[in-house]
Amino acid sequence: MTAWPKRIAVTGAAGFVGRAVLAGLRERGVEAIAIDRTPGEGIVAGDLSDPAFRRETLAGTDTVIHLAAIPGGAAEADYDLSRQVNLDLTLALMEEARGRFVYASSIAVFGAPSPEPVDDDTPPRPAITYGVHKLMCELALADLKRLGRLDGVALRLPGIVARPRAAAGLKSAFMSDVFHALAGREPITLPVSPEATMWMLSAHAVADALIHAVTVRDAPAVFTLPALRVRMDELVKALGGGKVSYEPDPVLEAQFGAYPPLSTPAADRLGFRHDGDLAALVKRVRS
Amino acid sequence: MTAWPKRIAVTGAAGFVGRAVLAGLRERGVEAIAIDRTPGEGIVAGDLSDPAFRRETLAGTDTVIHLAAIPGGAAEADYDLSRQVNLDLTLALMEEARGRFVYASSIAVFGAPSPEPVDDDTPPRPAITYGVHKLMCELALADLKRLGRLDGVALRLPGIVARPRAAAGLKSAFMSDVFHALAGREPITLPVSPEATMWMLSAHAVADALIHAVTVRDAPAVFTLPALRVRMDELVKALGGGKVSYEPDPVLEAQFGAYPPLSTPAADRLGFRHDGDLAALVKRVRS
Repeated sequence: MTAWPKRIAVTGAAGFVGRAVLAGLRERGVEAIAIDRTPGEGIVAGDLSDPAFRRETLAGTDTVIHLAAIPGGAAEADYDLSRQVNLDLTLALMEEARGRFVYASSIAVFGAPSPEPVDDDTPPRPAITYGVHKLMCELALADLKRLGRLDGVALRLPGIVARPRAAAGLKSAFMSDVFHALAGREPITLPVSPEATMWMLSAHAVADALIHAVTVRDAPAVFTLPALRVRMDELVKALGGGKVSYEPDPVLEAQFGAYPPLSTPAADRLGFRHDGDLAALVKRVRS
Repeated sequence: MTAWPKRIAVTGAAGFVGRAVLAGLRERGVEAIAIDRTPGEGIVAGDLSDPAFRRETLAGTDTVIHLAAIPGGAAEADYDLSRQVNLDLTLALMEEARGRFVYASSIAVFGAPSPEPVDDDTPPRPAITYGVHKLMCELALADLKRLGRLDGVALRLPGIVARPRAAAGLKSAFMSDVFHALAGREPITLPVSPEATMWMLSAHAVADALIHAVTVRDAPAVFTLPALRVRMDELVKALGGGKVSYEPDPVLEAQFGAYPPLSTPAADRLGFRHDGDLAALVKRVRS
């Protein structure tokens, strides 16, 4: 069994993925330092962009899981904020980190999906500021790792479901909203077609992946997580159906509803797994 | 004829490429604000990383040609300095720029050359910190241009000859040293094989390209400049031969002596040109 780090810090810990990671760590008997700018129970609240707070909070930690980020839509609306959080803060954390640094990157580095299947050799071509800053940080992480200055691992996360409703600044919110609407027997109008395809992971599966990344060995600096490729009409069926209408927005369909087949040999080899199938994903989201 | 900008600033103006650009501008009747950290005749000397100096010096300029950089070998030896100059300063200049911003990027974004021909679609895969920071700035420039915040053009420069001897921190110095040694009838031992291939431009040609970029229209955000693909033994012959011996260093040969065929359709379409042929390149370097 792999030895666990003694002191692990999670940034963005009050967020949707952060809470899932903290829960996953607790299940494994690991208490983490939970950091977020939003105060909450068990949260060390503060601004990590403040060097003094950052150093004080992270002093003595030997692992950081860095989730804090301005999401895609919000980053697109405020370049300077994305620069500050998604780029500058991430670079600062990487340069100061001691021990393992697990970075939540994103499939947004690939930009709008092309019809070609995506694999570990697909060149990233981000289309929005969020994806550009994620890619810049991936490049810096890989370089710091090459220089022997950082034990970094960057995982590209797909769409995570089911985020809370009205998740701020997320253009792909419909992927999660469909879960909530059908569970509550409410009507929903989807901005994509029934044939829309998306890469999805449950929060449970992404937490497992981020925690696995804390101790995984011989990993490349950057790789894409496995994800289930889900068709919207099949997801609706797996959720038991309901009052669903489709009004595809061509921009959203192109950006979030046209994901090609995905293969992730690097992650597969290292033991990273998606939810298995649609039924399992739905079951996990609802549990 | 295209209208010239009223106030043009050149960073890194005391450097080898900077002096060629200033000379090229003067030939066209254009006086530029020449900025460098090294004092000199006609130079506004100071540290552009100081926001006050930067804003004061660039106030009222409507064009920046940004050449200031820590070169590859020096950047590799000092990550923090490269971060400060090659990344942070460049990002700050781009975010503050008004008007056209011409950025000297580098073929270092491609990393160690592969046998595959390189064209405008070749994905960059930098192998050293210098190339990583150049690529990060290319990505930011393209994004700021997409957002309508910057009128930016990034040109990827090949090997520029003939740099002054003992150019600090340049791993590829041998490309220029061969010009000086043969001109001075001195013996030289080259760290690559006679069959080594390199992408080269004369300082005159690169100055023409950077000046052309000031007024070029409808250019993509980032593209590779045309360059002459030169074989070392043919270069030695074109230089009139001399006391040349070859002691190939496998690392340098792989990094600087294995450049595949290069095609640059984007730059070609926009009127960017290399020196034409080896005889013309040698003649320009010697003039």
